[in-house]
Amino acid sequence: MKFKVMGALGYEVREPSTFILNIHALRTPAQAVLQESFLIDPYYKIEELTPQHSENRFIRVEVTEPAIVNINYSAVIDTSYKQTAGNLLTHVPVMDMDTSVLPYLFPSRYCQSDKLFRFAHNKFGKIDNAFEKVLALTNWIHDNVEYLSGSTNSQTSAYDTVTEQAGVCRDFAHLGIALCRALDIPARYFTGYAYQLNPPDFHACFEAFIGGDWVIFDATKLVPLNGLVKIATGRDAADASIATIFGNVNFLSISASCELADEDFEPVFYDGKKPAGLTYL
Amino acid sequence: MKFKVMGALGYEVREPSTFILNIHALRTPAQAVLQESFLIDPYYKIEELTPQHSENRFIRVEVTEPAIVNINYSAVIDTSYKQTAGNLLTHVPVMDMDTSVLPYLFPSRYCQSDKLFRFAHNKFGKIDNAFEKVLALTNWIHDNVEYLSGSTNSQTSAYDTVTEQAGVCRDFAHLGIALCRALDIPARYFTGYAYQLNPPDFHACFEAFIGGDWVIFDATKLVPLNGLVKIATGRDAADASIATIFGNVNFLSISASCELADEDFEPVFYDGKKPAGLTYL
Amino acid sequence: MKFKVMGALGYEVREPSTFILNIHALRTPAQAVLQESFLIDPYYKIEELTPQHSENRFIRVEVTEPAIVNINYSAVIDTSYKQTAGNLLTHVPVMDMDTSVLPYLFPSRYCQSDKLFRFAHNKFGKIDNAFEKVLALTNWIHDNVEYLSGSTNSQTSAYDTVTEQAGVCRDFAHLGIALCRALDIPARYFTGYAYQLNPPDFHACFEAFIGGDWVIFDATKLVPLNGLVKIATGRDAADASIATIFGNVNFLSISASCELADEDFEPVFYDGKKPAGLTYL
Amino acid sequence: MKFKVMGALGYEVREPSTFILNIHALRTPAQAVLQESFLIDPYYKIEELTPQHSENRFIRVEVTEPAIVNINYSAVIDTSYKQTAGNLLTHVPVMDMDTSVLPYLFPSRYCQSDKLFRFAHNKFGKIDNAFEKVLALTNWIHDNVEYLSGSTNSQTSAYDTVTEQAGVCRDFAHLGIALCRALDIPARYFTGYAYQLNPPDFHACFEAFIGGDWVIFDATKLVPLNGLVKIATGRDAADASIATIFGNVNFLSISASCELADEDFEPVFYDGKKPAGLTYL
Repeated sequence: MKFKVMGALGYEVREPSTFILNIHALRTPAQAVLQESFLIDPYYKIEELTPQHSENRFIRVEVTEPAIVNINYSAVIDTSYKQTAGNLLTHVPVMDMDTSVLPYLFPSRYCQSDKLFRFAHNKFGKIDNAFEKVLALTNWIHDNVEYLSGSTNSQTSAYDTVTEQAGVCRDFAHLGIALCRALDIPARYFTGYAYQLNPPDFHACFEAFIGGDWVIFDATKLVPLNGLVKIATGRDAADASIATIFGNVNFLSISASCELADEDFEPVFYDGKKPAGLTYL
Repeated sequence: MKFKVMGALGYEVREPSTFILNIHALRTPAQAVLQESFLIDPYYKIEELTPQHSENRFIRVEVTEPAIVNINYSAVIDTSYKQTAGNLLTHVPVMDMDTSVLPYLFPSRYCQSDKLFRFAHNKFGKIDNAFEKVLALTNWIHDNVEYLSGSTNSQTSAYDTVTEQAGVCRDFAHLGIALCRALDIPARYFTGYAYQLNPPDFHACFEAFIGGDWVIFDATKLVPLNGLVKIATGRDAADASIATIFGNVNFLSISASCELADEDFEPVFYDGKKPAGLTYL
Repeated sequence: MKFKVMGALGYEVREPSTFILNIHALRTPAQAVLQESFLIDPYYKIEELTPQHSENRFIRVEVTEPAIVNINYSAVIDTSYKQTAGNLLTHVPVMDMDTSVLPYLFPSRYCQSDKLFRFAHNKFGKIDNAFEKVLALTNWIHDNVEYLSGSTNSQTSAYDTVTEQAGVCRDFAHLGIALCRALDIPARYFTGYAYQLNPPDFHACFEAFIGGDWVIFDATKLVPLNGLVKIATGRDAADASIATIFGNVNFLSISASCELADEDFEPVFYDGKKPAGLTYL
Repeated sequence: MKFKVMGALGYEVREPSTFILNIHALRTPAQAVLQESFLIDPYYKIEELTPQHSENRFIRVEVTEPAIVNINYSAVIDTSYKQTAGNLLTHVPVMDMDTSVLPYLFPSRYCQSDKLFRFAHNKFGKIDNAFEKVLALTNWIHDNVEYLSGSTNSQTSAYDTVTEQAGVCRDFAHLGIALCRALDIPARYFTGYAYQLNPPDFHACFEAFIGGDWVIFDATKLVPLNGLVKIATGRDAADASIATIFGNVNFLSISASCELADEDFEPVFYDGKKPAGLTYL
C-alpha cells in the first residue's frame, strides 16, 4: 500500500541547541521508502543515526545560532503487512522469547507495568488466548478512557491514565503497553503517520508480541490499522519521541499528514467477528 | 585486581516458573573471568543469553515443577580500570555522543529525569566541569539521603527518593542517574559484587558518561570504587535486576560476597583533593 | 447492643514525646459509654480533648522522659442504630446539605476524589439511587482489591489503591470515601472496635451521607455492620489516627478486641435482596 | 488600613448547577467590612453559609437553568494587624496547642507533610527559633521555586512542587504549609485580596502558628504582607477554593483587585535585619 507522508516542525531557537528528530519513515523489508526529502531551513549539517539496538532513524542536528528553524520531511512509502488468525496468536512463554524481545517485558518511564500487575490480572488474567486478551484490554481502554486533547502532558504516564481516564494517543498507547507487560506480554510503543487520522497529526499506538509476531493495536480506534507508516518503535515515548531538544528552544508548530498514493484501500479494524491480527513485518 | 565472588539465591517455586537471573560477572576486555561455577539445585536446563543491545549475561531457567530451588554462583575475576584526572572529564555535547550512549540520556522507569530538570539545574547547573558536577550531586545524595534498610521497595523511584530522602543502594543509584540525565549527562545503572561492603550483599551504583568514558560513582560511599566486580549495566534496575521471576514463587534468601584474591589493595575513593575519575573499561 | 471493647498500645519512648491518642469510644445519643477505664503505665498526666469541630475524644499525653509506655483502654458500650430502606436513601443535593457536611465533599490527604472523577462517573455514574450507587462501589472495591496485610503503609492513598488493588481496612475505606466524593456524595472515615473481626484488631470503614443520614459501609465485608463501636470519624485517617506521635518513639505493640456483652446478636450485612442502610445516630 | 476590593467571576452554566463561592471578605474583630455588595446576574437566590468549624463566608447559589452567569463582589474593608518581634515567636509544643489548632498539624490533600518529614528536618530542623525556621523555609521556596503561570493545575500538590520547582501562589503556599507541618508547626492556607499584586488577581499564601499567633508568610514575596484582605483560611485549597462547582459549567473569566482606600501605606516585608512577624487577628 503506497502512502505520501509529510511532517513539519517549527522552532524558535534562542541559543545554540541540538535536536534529535525522529520523523523519518523506517526502512524495513516490508516498508520501502520509494522517495524521500528532508529539508531544514536555514541549512544545518545533519547526521542520520541508526542505533545499534534499534532500527529507528534518528536525525541529529546542531543549530549553531539563534534562528527560526523549519523542518520538513516528505516521502512516498510502500508498506506491506500480514494478517494472522487470532487463534494462532498465542502467548509466547518467556522461556521461548528471543533476547531482543525481553526488554519489552520490563517497566519503563511511562509504562509502570509493575504497578498494574493486580489490575491487569484481575481484569484480563482469565482470558486464555493472547490476541483476545490484548483485544480485551484495548477495548477496555477505548471504552473507559476519554480522548481529550490537552488533558495530559509530557509527564503523564500509564499509571495516571488508568485512573484519570483521559488522554491522547500517546497515553492510550502507554496504558496498552503497561497492561500487556503486566500480563507477561512484551509490548512496545509505535509512532507513525496515519491515514484517515482526523485532524491529521503524528500518531502513536502499540505492538504486542504474540504468536511470535509484533501485532499492532490501537486503543484510540481512530484509524484503520493498515493505514500506518512506521516511524519508530521503542519502550515508550522516551525512546521514540518525534523531537528531543537540548537547548533553549521555543516550540512553534507541528503538523503531519498521510495520504493514499494507491488505489483500493480496504480499511482493517479489529471489529468483525473473528478479526485477524495485523503485523507490519 | 583479583576477587573471589559468590552469589546465592533461594526460592520456593510453587508452580512451573521462569527465572531470568543476572548474577554472572561480565566478561569485558578489562574484566576477565578466570574461573566460574554456576549451580542450580535441583538441576534444570539453563540458557545463557547475551542480548544484542547489551553485554549483560542473563541466565534463563525454566523450573518445571514445584521445588525449593537453590542457585549458587562463584567466580574468580580479574578486573582492571583506568583513572583520569577530573579536569579531563568534561561534558560531552549531545552532538558528539555515540548512538549507543543516547538511550542513557532519556528518562526510565525509576529515573524520571524529566521531572527533576529544574531541581538539577537549580542545584548543580552552574558547576562547569562535568566530573565536578557529578561529584557534587553524588555528595548531595550522600549528605541528604539516609541509608535505611527496608525504607523502600521495588517500586520506589528517584522521584520519591529526592523528597523522602531515605533508601538503599538501588535508590541512591537511581537518584544519581536521574540527576545526571536531567543535566544532559548520560548515566546508567551498575550492579556488581563489592569488596568491603558491610554487611556483604549485592551492590548497585551508577556510571556517568563524561570525558568520553563511563566513570563510576557511588553515592552510598560504602565501598572503595576499585573494589567492584561488574555484573551488569542498564538504564535502571528494570534492566539489570538480579532476578526477574515469572510465576508463583516465594523468595527465601539472598546473599553475596566479594573477597580479595590478590595482595595489596589500595582503596580508591573520590575524597582526596583532586580525585581522578575511575573507569571500568 | 452491648459490647465490651479493649484497646492496648505499647511504645518505647526514647525522649520526651507527646501522644495524641484516639481510642476512646465516642459518646453520642446513640452510643452510651456504660463503663470505661483508661490506664497509662507509668502514670503521666493526660488531657481529654474534644475539638470544637468534631465529637472525637482525643487524649493528649506528655511523656516527659524515656520509658516503656503501656496504654490500656477498656469499656462497656451500648450502641443503637437505625435502618432505612434503600429506596429512601436518595442523593442529597449540594444545595440542601448542612454546612457541617460540606467538608466531606472535598478531597483530602488519602482520598483524592478530584483524581478519581472520571473513573467514578464512568463506573458508577449511571446508578440512580444513592444507596445502590454506594453499594455498587463498595462491592467493586471488595471484588477488585485484595485484603493483604503488609501490602501498604501509612502513606498509601486511594489513588494508589484503585490501581494497585491490594490493601487493608484503612485503604478500603479511603477508596470508598474518594469514590463517593467524586460522585458528589459526602463521605467520612470511621474507626472503631469491631465484633467478630478475625484476627481481632482496630477496624476502619466509612460513612456516606445519603438520605440525610450518615450510612455505614464496609468494603472489606469482614464484620457485621451492626457490631461496630465508633471511636471517631474524620475526613480520612489523618483526622482519626489511633495514635499520632510527636517525638522519637518506637512502636512495640497494638491490640484491640470487641466482645458481645449482650444476648441475641443478629448480624447485619448488606447482602440480602433489598438491604436497608444502617446508621449509627 | 482601608482597602477597596473587587472580585468578578463569569461562567457559562450548561445545566442546573450549584456553586459554592468563597470570595467575601471575612468579618473578624480585626477586619471590619465597612461596605459590601454582592451581585449575581441573572438573579438567583443565594445563601450565606458560615460553617461551624470555620469563620469562612461561603455563598451557595443554585443556578436552575442554562445561563451566562456573572458574579461581582465589591467591598470596603478596614484591616488591622499586630507585629511581634521574631524572638518572641517561639515554637508552641503540641502539648500546649489549643484543639482548634491541631487539625493544621496533619497532612491534607495538597500538603503531604508526612512525605516531607526528612526533607524538612534535614534542611530546616536545626534552626531553633520558630519564626526563623518558617522564614528560612519561605526563603528556600522563594529561591528555588520558579513563579510560572500555567506550570501547574488544580491537582498539583506540595509533593510535586518541592521537586518540580515551578508553580503559582497556590503551590508556593501549599509547599510552605507542608514544610511547617512536617516540622510540627501548624500551618493553614490563606486566600485573600492583595494590594500591589501585579497583575491584579486573587492571592494565596499561608499562616503558621508560632508564639501563640497565626503569623502570615508569603513565599512568593510578590506583595506587602500588610496589604492583604482575608477571604478564608483552611487546611489547603480544598477547603478555601474561590469557587467549587457542581454541574456542567464552563469557566469564562476571573478577576480581582485591591486598592488602597486610605493614606499612608507603609509596606511590610520580612526583609529587614530583624523582621517582626505580622498577624491578622
